[in-house]
Amino acid sequence: MKISLASLHKAFESRIRLGIMSALAVNDTLDFNSLKDFLDVTDGNLASHIKALEKEAFIGVSKSFVNRKPNTKYFITTAGKKAFNDHLKTLEQLIKSQKP
Amino acid sequence: MKISLASLHKAFESRIRLGIMSALAVNDTLDFNSLKDFLDVTDGNLASHIKALEKEAFIGVSKSFVNRKPNTKYFITTAGKKAFNDHLKTLEQLIKSQKP
Repeated sequence: MKISLASLHKAFESRIRLGIMSALAVNDTLDFNSLKDFLDVTDGNLASHIKALEKEAFIGVSKSFVNRKPNTKYFITTAGKKAFNDHLKTLEQLIKSQKP
Repeated sequence: MKISLASLHKAFESRIRLGIMSALAVNDTLDFNSLKDFLDVTDGNLASHIKALEKEAFIGVSKSFVNRKPNTKYFITTAGKKAFNDHLKTLEQLIKSQKP
């Protein structure tokens, strides 16, 4: 009767980070405001969670200019995709273990 | 493109608490040592997460004596079961949203 909770990555414990990863896993890139709309969080809150995921190299950032305005886009990295998939697989097992 | 992350309860963000709830959802009662074995955590760590879940009234504790030794057992409450099920349902939706 053991579930390998170790494969639940600490970086994804926060629901905001879970949301960021979910959104970036199904979209090639998203800018800050799209992520903000999706998650319904404050700028500061989102920025700090983005920073944490960047630090783990689970998401990356690409900066460019559109009509001379800075345009920052976020994307999921290969390592991020793998870690997130492993995390979801473990959650899936946990959910299965709860069904009669 | 919105997942209601609000139904992810903050109390279950920690994987240890997710583990405690999982274990108690499928066992009528469990004592401290069984939970400890299941989760592979230290006494202090487990105790603090149990306290947090007790505070939310998601788990309860029953104290008795067996052979004159104190016997403390933990169980999931009705509110805990409901909140945990809602949490798992939201995770399930999130997982589904990730599948092509």
